[in-house]
Amino acid sequence: MIYFDHAASSYPKPEQVAIAMHEAVASYSANPGRGGHKLAEQAREVIEQARKKIATMFGAPNKKHVWFYQNATMALNQAILGFPFQEGDHVVATMFEHNSIIRPLEKLASEKGIAITYVEPNEEGIIAVEEFEKACTEKTCMFAISHASNVTGAVISISDVSKIAKEREIVVLLDASQTAGTIPIDIEKDAIDLLAFAGHKSLLGPQGTGVLISKDDYNLSPLVVGGTGNQSELLHQPHSWPNRYEAGTLNTPGIAGLSAGIDAVVEMGIEDIWKHEKELMDHFLKGLAGISGVSSYGPSDLSKRVAVIPFEIDGVESHEAAMILDEHYQIAVRAGMHCAPKTHQALQTSEKGLIRVSFGPYNTIKEVDTLLEAIEEIRMAFL
Amino acid sequence: MIYFDHAASSYPKPEQVAIAMHEAVASYSANPGRGGHKLAEQAREVIEQARKKIATMFGAPNKKHVWFYQNATMALNQAILGFPFQEGDHVVATMFEHNSIIRPLEKLASEKGIAITYVEPNEEGIIAVEEFEKACTEKTCMFAISHASNVTGAVISISDVSKIAKEREIVVLLDASQTAGTIPIDIEKDAIDLLAFAGHKSLLGPQGTGVLISKDDYNLSPLVVGGTGNQSELLHQPHSWPNRYEAGTLNTPGIAGLSAGIDAVVEMGIEDIWKHEKELMDHFLKGLAGISGVSSYGPSDLSKRVAVIPFEIDGVESHEAAMILDEHYQIAVRAGMHCAPKTHQALQTSEKGLIRVSFGPYNTIKEVDTLLEAIEEIRMAFL
Repeated sequence: MIYFDHAASSYPKPEQVAIAMHEAVASYSANPGRGGHKLAEQAREVIEQARKKIATMFGAPNKKHVWFYQNATMALNQAILGFPFQEGDHVVATMFEHNSIIRPLEKLASEKGIAITYVEPNEEGIIAVEEFEKACTEKTCMFAISHASNVTGAVISISDVSKIAKEREIVVLLDASQTAGTIPIDIEKDAIDLLAFAGHKSLLGPQGTGVLISKDDYNLSPLVVGGTGNQSELLHQPHSWPNRYEAGTLNTPGIAGLSAGIDAVVEMGIEDIWKHEKELMDHFLKGLAGISGVSSYGPSDLSKRVAVIPFEIDGVESHEAAMILDEHYQIAVRAGMHCAPKTHQALQTSEKGLIRVSFGPYNTIKEVDTLLEAIEEIRMAFL
Repeated sequence: MIYFDHAASSYPKPEQVAIAMHEAVASYSANPGRGGHKLAEQAREVIEQARKKIATMFGAPNKKHVWFYQNATMALNQAILGFPFQEGDHVVATMFEHNSIIRPLEKLASEKGIAITYVEPNEEGIIAVEEFEKACTEKTCMFAISHASNVTGAVISISDVSKIAKEREIVVLLDASQTAGTIPIDIEKDAIDLLAFAGHKSLLGPQGTGVLISKDDYNLSPLVVGGTGNQSELLHQPHSWPNRYEAGTLNTPGIAGLSAGIDAVVEMGIEDIWKHEKELMDHFLKGLAGISGVSSYGPSDLSKRVAVIPFEIDGVESHEAAMILDEHYQIAVRAGMHCAPKTHQALQTSEKGLIRVSFGPYNTIKEVDTLLEAIEEIRMAFL
């Protein structure tokens, strides 16, 4: 099996991820921070080490600013639905958002009366920094944006966008699900206020993990309330971080696995991973350009995208092409809408969807060649 | 290490739990239901099998009524915060609730103006069925109650309570975190509308898993919205179940582990597990009764409780006793408030907290004897 669906979930994971999870379950599956004994303490310690690692990797003030969730969607919901919006407040997002940003925003639009502007990409498939400036109104209080499109891989120049936000005291919420572990991110240097990402994509951790980092206190209301293992006498959620935003038992084995995944990323080096994935992307795009009747989407400037490439084969429906790639060639890709309806609207591909390939650190040029050959064969078969 | 903290998280887990999780991460860590290929399909299939298993175990109409969350707290928040309460609506809970029920209810009390009655236990430490009847008003629309207290183990006679609810068209939300896997529960026979529980306690699954089962459609508003892998074109959360209530990527390895844990429970037999735990509890309580200066709390009728026993040693602070048990005797227990402040209020133990032991299916009479000897020694040392 050749796996090119890393934008959905990375595979394979480094060996130590499954080992760390096995150990968490087999050796110390007590409740972290909820007991008065060694096993509970060991579970707590593994979680706190992971928190510290993540704080360091993304430049958080300290580990208390790092909050764990089941997935990036939950982290984004905490940031968006928990934000103290008032009726009439305005949010700038982009046409490249995933439903994990679109749907919470639209929920607030209908329930709380916030306004949303989705800025459009240019002809190059890039969302220009000026567009954010133009979209701002006096009521704009948040930019809620994806660092990279999960359909085209197009990357936003976040430090430039943040600059515009800072001049206007706008909070920047960045969804780095497609970039955390592939592009270096520092919330301090990049002036990001709230950073959300999945643990099971380029950070090579398991599913069941998502993170929200809050640089300062934005007075977020906790989305979920309940047991925190401390200040149990309070009938409301305590104010201390991270407890305020992490009700209930955490996913200890998942967080242990994420921690091991991050170790592997650090060992390989984020810059080197990005370089490798760009080489694969470059090779693939060049190969694709040589096949007639096949078109790809996304920025041509590879420094402005991650290795997520959508394409179509003339006369072949995207789901059918994905099925053929899976069944005949043992190549895993994803077809359809990719939970990003506005992106397809911008690309004018809403009707047909697209085939998407996304590369990971363990993919090789040889595997990309196999894919190119398969595409060529499919194209010929459907002529 | 002797582990008596099962009410917080069970340990050890059956061997196959860690193995199933290892396999999920090492062999098919693709995104369930989000790809067009075999690995994604395999992940989806494991989740759907788990859903089906849970539906069968708890008598749900079908697997679409079973929704996965990070923990029981999230499941309870979905049920409570998502319920279509109107200002002035009334909820009946009990003094035995965990903060995972108290805090969402109190949040609604202050934000939405609902009223809450917490019914009191009798002198036996049991919440009598009549109390629910007395607490009802014309505005009562939900009973939000724990099946068993996580402090005293006292079990509510749920089918009797549900009968009162049904007569008044009141929705019953049951938190079975302390009973799922220990006491047979059937939402149809027991007339439970919404059933929430943790996967990492008596169901022997890993942390990172919680479940909400919805018998009918109560028009719950989804707490978290985002990608669902289908109907991606909609800007709001789709209406189809379970997608409506499960935004974002699910915790595949966790659910695979839970599925394996449930297999082990089914193999041992819930009735046999309960019988075994009652024997341990009986042995422990009889032993405790023979030690002077030690008092335990909870119903004396063992058929009305699960194996969760709080006690205190005269002159020894609960956290200190837990620490001594851990460090000197390698016995893991939990001390303090157990995230259940009202229970301690009812027991008049809010100031000091209590030591809590809770037994699991793999504990033995010999281990209980070791605990009894340790308690006696501690008692003597502090005389």
